Amino acid sequence: MNTEIITIGDELLIGQVVDTNSAWMGEQLEKEGFPVVWKTTVGDVGEHLLEAIDKALSRSQIVLLTGGIGPTKDDITRDTLCRYFNSELHFSEEVYADIKRLFEHSGRKINTLTRNQAMVPDACTVIRNYAGTAPCTWFEREGRVLVSMPGVPIEMKWLMMNEVIPRLKSAFHSGVYIHHHTLWVEGYSESELALALKDFEMQLPSYMKLAYLPQAGVVRLRLSAFTGNDGELSDVIAGQHVHLHRLLAGHILSEEDRAPEEMLGRKLLEQGLTVGTAESCTGGRIASLITSIPGSSHYYKGSVIAYANDVKCRVLGVKRQALRSYGAVSRQVVEQMAMKAIRTLECDCAIATSGIAGPDGGTPDKPVGTVWIAAAYGEQLLSTCYQFGTLREMTIVRASNTALIMLLRLLNE
Amino acid sequence: MNTEIITIGDELLIGQVVDTNSAWMGEQLEKEGFPVVWKTTVGDVGEHLLEAIDKALSRSQIVLLTGGIGPTKDDITRDTLCRYFNSELHFSEEVYADIKRLFEHSGRKINTLTRNQAMVPDACTVIRNYAGTAPCTWFEREGRVLVSMPGVPIEMKWLMMNEVIPRLKSAFHSGVYIHHHTLWVEGYSESELALALKDFEMQLPSYMKLAYLPQAGVVRLRLSAFTGNDGELSDVIAGQHVHLHRLLAGHILSEEDRAPEEMLGRKLLEQGLTVGTAESCTGGRIASLITSIPGSSHYYKGSVIAYANDVKCRVLGVKRQALRSYGAVSRQVVEQMAMKAIRTLECDCAIATSGIAGPDGGTPDKPVGTVWIAAAYGEQLLSTCYQFGTLREMTIVRASNTALIMLLRLLNE
Repeated sequence: MNTEIITIGDELLIGQVVDTNSAWMGEQLEKEGFPVVWKTTVGDVGEHLLEAIDKALSRSQIVLLTGGIGPTKDDITRDTLCRYFNSELHFSEEVYADIKRLFEHSGRKINTLTRNQAMVPDACTVIRNYAGTAPCTWFEREGRVLVSMPGVPIEMKWLMMNEVIPRLKSAFHSGVYIHHHTLWVEGYSESELALALKDFEMQLPSYMKLAYLPQAGVVRLRLSAFTGNDGELSDVIAGQHVHLHRLLAGHILSEEDRAPEEMLGRKLLEQGLTVGTAESCTGGRIASLITSIPGSSHYYKGSVIAYANDVKCRVLGVKRQALRSYGAVSRQVVEQMAMKAIRTLECDCAIATSGIAGPDGGTPDKPVGTVWIAAAYGEQLLSTCYQFGTLREMTIVRASNTALIMLLRLLNE
Repeated sequence: MNTEIITIGDELLIGQVVDTNSAWMGEQLEKEGFPVVWKTTVGDVGEHLLEAIDKALSRSQIVLLTGGIGPTKDDITRDTLCRYFNSELHFSEEVYADIKRLFEHSGRKINTLTRNQAMVPDACTVIRNYAGTAPCTWFEREGRVLVSMPGVPIEMKWLMMNEVIPRLKSAFHSGVYIHHHTLWVEGYSESELALALKDFEMQLPSYMKLAYLPQAGVVRLRLSAFTGNDGELSDVIAGQHVHLHRLLAGHILSEEDRAPEEMLGRKLLEQGLTVGTAESCTGGRIASLITSIPGSSHYYKGSVIAYANDVKCRVLGVKRQALRSYGAVSRQVVEQMAMKAIRTLECDCAIATSGIAGPDGGTPDKPVGTVWIAAAYGEQLLSTCYQFGTLREMTIVRASNTALIMLLRLLNE
């Protein structure tokens, strides 16, 4: 049972839009036993889409399309599907009623282009889209399924969860059971970890696979197993799991493959603690990660983003003397930021960052990429200086992940 | 001249990692006259990669690969390229010297897996990677080029800018000139705009194309032209451009296709103003967007992320009476937040948000997705209530973009 995704749109090819849809779809499909084995992106060119569809349906039982079904002329998916499935368009009263409802709700008028969204191919099953004007269409041929969905993430996600995945599950039994188990391992580089696990990897049965995903000071280690028998599989996995644990004792930061902000959130909830941040070079990214988690208002109080030194002093209360003597990017200042954040925001623990994200501002002894990070919990304090390289975005991303992990470590102690 | 990208790795298919590499590559390549016409993602499966390479080289002159060249067993790109190009591996002293330099610099020891990174196929040109251990390899066959790069973004970007693009430019003259011109249009929905531009679109020559990319209250309108003669093209584009301007008078928010945070940054620099934010439901995302722009320290002072009501009062100075009478998600509170941010952070203008990102916290009169946004500049104040739907992430993203655009509008007045 193979599943493929085709994403459609020039904006994806020329980088105006990053394709986050297919990653999200891959994750959901994989959980449900429909592993994605191939992804293709084509532009708004009918011939290319035809070729991609033809190739995908020749390789795979399930082909999911997103994009290219808006009301405007550059959207070519619907017409291409009509060509591929020798289908004509007809007007769907049902789809039109949905569009009318959507427009009435927001007080807008329906124009001819929007009305045209109710024209659907006659060779398909129409799946209603409650979140937008373009319906989802489901085609079948010789036991294979092609589904066309909107590219707007919110509409695609709604359709996937409520319609497409449930229908796929009733149409197909995938026959393959997949288990992934991912550990967060600290204290090893990717190659050191691979050497430490060389013998373990050699003894794995052929239907199991180990993958190394290095990320901000940890390696995410993914053990995957594929088989036709679910019951048997979970025993085998459990055995290998115990084995891995013995080999990596003391180096496992997490047993779950969750983002650091989610792991931190769970830990804070568990321990009934609140958190705040005092950020300089990360500029609010840590706050933004923490608050990306639903329910974070239970443990997150707030942050002071102190980009200007003056804000560090006036709002947070960092001593001007420390800034003058050691500079903003120093152990003294980042530790004060963390401690003062606890006091200013009245929280139990805090994270602070101060560094040089670049491209300017580096000096010979503090080059671009230098970041001091501190984590504080009550009177306990951890602080470390890192060097994250010369790319601004990378420095901000790595510093933020590292800071979250540092507080997680402090709370684990 | 067609260019394709193949990205490699199970983590991309199962959504553990979002493929941002290919979007970035597409953007750079397009600027240099190498438009990407096809993107493919395959997992860590040799047969799939072989098929993808074969197909891509049959369609396109330039094929760029990223990923799958790490030191561990799950990385299969190098071996697959050896198979495809009938090549053997040999040890490269030059690559090994680079690896040694990199390791000595960071005080780490080279192990056998890392040493193995110096084994390179003999049928290729090796391009040294100063940022990591896996070299870039350049293969040629029958006038076509395949380049294999690391999947680590920082390494891939360095190689693309310093090695791959310059080499492609000297190896190929693309023969096709491409111009994209993107306008940010406000005050129209996607379909309203398409109707307003129907006649304009009809009269466009066949080598020009209009695309509509709706985003957070604006439509990005992209006019593209493709031709073999650069000089002629710029005249034609200029003419169509004047035409578009006349049609959209008063609705053009920007003439440049840049993220709102970048446009705001330019405007602030131009006007010599400083900015700060007071965020509740956006949780630092606006601050994070503003500081993602290099040089933002020239105009960004800082932020107070006031998630807890107590922080809104104590740190920002919002009146407790306003919170009690109107609730945190209200015009009164968000306007106070914006005005107080100007005072607390000592900046010239500020953005404030207060809303219900969900999934919990909604009420019948303030359902999930309700967000009040205010922008303040001196004594001027704009504030509006929005409804961004029921998905937390989407609400945060849309509210942040909308807030940046609101301040931009206020500064444009």
